[in-house]
This record gives sequence, structure tokens and C-alpha cells, in this order.
Amino acid sequence: MIRWKLTVEYDGGSYVGWQRQENGRSIQQSMEEAVFHFCGEETRVHGAGRTDAGVHAMGQVAHVDIKKQASAHTIREALNAHMRNEQIVVTDAVQVMPNFHARISAVRRTYLYRILNRRPRPTLEAGRVWHVPLPLDTKAMHAAAQALVGRHNFTSFRAAMCQAKSPVRTIEELSVIRKGDEIQIHVRAQSFLHHQIRNFAGSLELVGSRKWTAADLLAALAAEDRSAAGPTAPPDGLYLVEVEYPNMDSSQAPE
Amino acid sequence: MIRWKLTVEYDGGSYVGWQRQENGRSIQQSMEEAVFHFCGEETRVHGAGRTDAGVHAMGQVAHVDIKKQASAHTIREALNAHMRNEQIVVTDAVQVMPNFHARISAVRRTYLYRILNRRPRPTLEAGRVWHVPLPLDTKAMHAAAQALVGRHNFTSFRAAMCQAKSPVRTIEELSVIRKGDEIQIHVRAQSFLHHQIRNFAGSLELVGSRKWTAADLLAALAAEDRSAAGPTAPPDGLYLVEVEYPNMDSSQAPE
Repeated sequence: MIRWKLTVEYDGGSYVGWQRQENGRSIQQSMEEAVFHFCGEETRVHGAGRTDAGVHAMGQVAHVDIKKQASAHTIREALNAHMRNEQIVVTDAVQVMPNFHARISAVRRTYLYRILNRRPRPTLEAGRVWHVPLPLDTKAMHAAAQALVGRHNFTSFRAAMCQAKSPVRTIEELSVIRKGDEIQIHVRAQSFLHHQIRNFAGSLELVGSRKWTAADLLAALAAEDRSAAGPTAPPDGLYLVEVEYPNMDSSQAPE
Repeated sequence: MIRWKLTVEYDGGSYVGWQRQENGRSIQQSMEEAVFHFCGEETRVHGAGRTDAGVHAMGQVAHVDIKKQASAHTIREALNAHMRNEQIVVTDAVQVMPNFHARISAVRRTYLYRILNRRPRPTLEAGRVWHVPLPLDTKAMHAAAQALVGRHNFTSFRAAMCQAKSPVRTIEELSVIRKGDEIQIHVRAQSFLHHQIRNFAGSLELVGSRKWTAADLLAALAAEDRSAAGPTAPPDGLYLVEVEYPNMDSSQAPE
């Protein structure tokens, strides 16, 4: 039995999200089927981030245990061959120690939220961005966002169905930058609550459009009440960019 | 009668190309129908670059004459409303003098050709890049490409059906740069021959994969024979980025 760490890229637009669900095809199910077609083993593929329907990933990380002996190259190529009709690819496969866990071992997750901020709707970026037609003040968004950085009770930015035991999280970075018509929100933390980044984006849009001041954002955080914060931004603009682990050198098993 | 200069963005994947054709839907046809639905006028929309099927544009430029009086804002919004089911948007509309011609007046066209250079196929960028799985030497590609810069007879890089009178063109810039897994070819010239950039990309791929040396590329150019150069790269990676005009200030009519 070998534990494999897989780095995974996907276009989330055609999936119900990472996690297996009754109502449609998930990334997890597609990957578990690919493993089964490769080696005949019924396994569970564990993901670092349970991305929602429509959310994308450049660098999701998953782990899976496979009995069949194979090189890292073969694992990656075989899973990709069996997923050739999916919008999912394994970009990297590495053998790791059995105590590695994609979700539990992760020490940092980096997400990107993209807003297309111009009057005409997107064409090339349709399904890949949140389209906000009215001009947003990116500097005001960035300045206000700094109140969310650090350790806080994020009840106001947490989905009702969030299963986490505690609403306390520590945001390490929350930056808002403009590149032409595109606004990028870069967010880093060890872990996030359900919908937390999309709820950040929805509230920051209120600041950018001057419906809210920085003080309003601070008051929403302090209220510890979901109804005090802004709406949930659409999934289209959200990307899981990277998941980091401690001491990866020592947790990587020799091949 | 007012002449409008329109800046146009599109995902070329669902179209037979810029120009009207019997065998499918073109960008030109979609725009002419949008003009007709707006003002009831049957017009011709002239594009600066006759992009092929599958080729994209961030900054195509077109012109059209419209009798109905309207502000630039109304022209843009109305055309976009009538193209809401298309993968095309007008990002800018400007009133210009009647002697402005999108194709003939253009003094510089900038194209981008994108290659995804990694073993796994694209997901988020599917249809937006040329996927080349084997590693390419970007520095060798850039160095060899400089032989194509300047004024040359480009018969070797010209499609058989090219209708231009002369095969001589002046390439102002041809740069090959790497950004992670992506290779970008940036090309600028006043005008191009049919398939010229895709033929450049196809030959530069041979240099990058070391099937060709820089001397082979030079020999292909000197041969003045299409069969001496490399294959035509797929349209998916090609983008018309920008079209420039002389003295746009003086050619813009007051509104």
C-alpha cells in the first residue's frame, strides 16, 4: 500500500464541487473512478479543500492509498488517461509517508478570487470571474480588508451549513489588487470556514462600490452574525491556488 | 451617417472566424445582425484582422456606418444587448472621421500566441492554448525567432490561400517568453500574411523541441517555399491583442 499525494487542477464549472453528492458529478467521484479503472481498487480520495460547485483549482491537493505498485509517472499518466473526458488533471504525483493527510496535514491554503470589473460582460473569461459592471475602488477594498486579517471570530462570514466546530480562524493575508479590468483578491490562511472567501468577496464588493465604509465592514465582523455581512459572491471567480505542508521533504517517502 | 470605431473581444472557439462564410456563424455576421436589430440598417462591419476559426481577440477593431443617431454609450450597450447570446462583446465605441478604415488605416497589429508546455493537458485553459507536452527550450526559440524580425519575403510562412499581393512583410517584434508552464509568443507588425503567426509558432516549436536549429529556421525563411517551414499551429492559442492607428486624436470626430 502506497500513499500518494496528488496535485490537481480543474475547471469546476461542470461539477457539483469537490465532494461526492447525490445530485451530480463531483471531482472526488471522478478521481475515485479513475483510480478504480487504473487498479481495480475501491478507494477514497481525500482533498485538502472541499471546493463548492463551480469553484476552480490550480493546485488542489489530494491523497489516496493504492496497493498496485507503480511509479509516480505512471500514477499521474494513468489517472489522467482515465480522466480524459473530465475537466480535471493530476499535475503532480508524489509518494508520501502514511501519516500524510491532504486535509489535516495542510498548514496553509492560498485562494484567488477574480472580479472582472468593467461594463461589458466577459467572453474569454466567462465562468472564470465574477462580473461586476460598476467601477470598484480597489484601494478602499484593500484598506478595509486589512481589518479581517489576523485571528477573529468569523461567524458573520460563515455559511449556515458550515460544519466547523469553531468560527475562529486566522487570516494571514488578504490583498486586493487591480490589473487593468481585473481585480484579484489573494487570501491565505491555514484553513477557512464554508463560503468564507466568497463572503469576504461579497462584502468587499460593497466597500468597493461605496455602499459600505471600512467601518461598516468592521461592524459586520464584530456583529458575529451572518446577516450582518454582505452577500455570498458567485463561485465562478474562486480558485484554490496552493496548499502547503510542513516538512514535505521528510514526509516524502523514497521511491 | 456616423462612422463608429468598435473595439471587440471574443472567444473564437464557437465561430468560423471573423469573416462571413457559408459553413457557419462568423463574428462579422453576428455583429452585422446586432447592428440590424438595433437600428434596422443593413450594414457591413469591417474588421482590422480577419481572424480564422477558433482564433480569439482581446482587441479586434472594426468600423461600421450607422445612420441612426446615438451616443457612443448607447451604441456599445445596444450592440452588446443584441449579442447577449454570443461570445462577443464590444468593449469600446468611438465616433471617427469618415476616412477611418479599421483594416486599411491600421499601422500596427499585436498578436499573442500561447503555448501550455507541460505533460498534463489543459483544463481551465482548454481551447485557449496550444498544448505541447514535451519541454520546449524557450531561450532557443527566442534567439532563433530574431532571424524573422525585419523586412523579409515570408512565402515560407504564408498559407496557400493567402490573398495578399506581396509576400513581403516587416516584423517589428517577435519575442518568446516563459511564465511558468506557459510560453508566450508576442508578435507585432503593420500587417500579416494568412496563417503567418500560426506558421511562426509551428516552426518555433520545432526549434524549442530541438528538431530544428536556428540555422534550420533561417534556411526555411530563405527557401521562400511553404513546404520548407514547419506545420501550422492550432488556432486555439492565438489572440488579436491590439490594433493601432495613426493620429487617432485628429481622426476622432467630436460627439
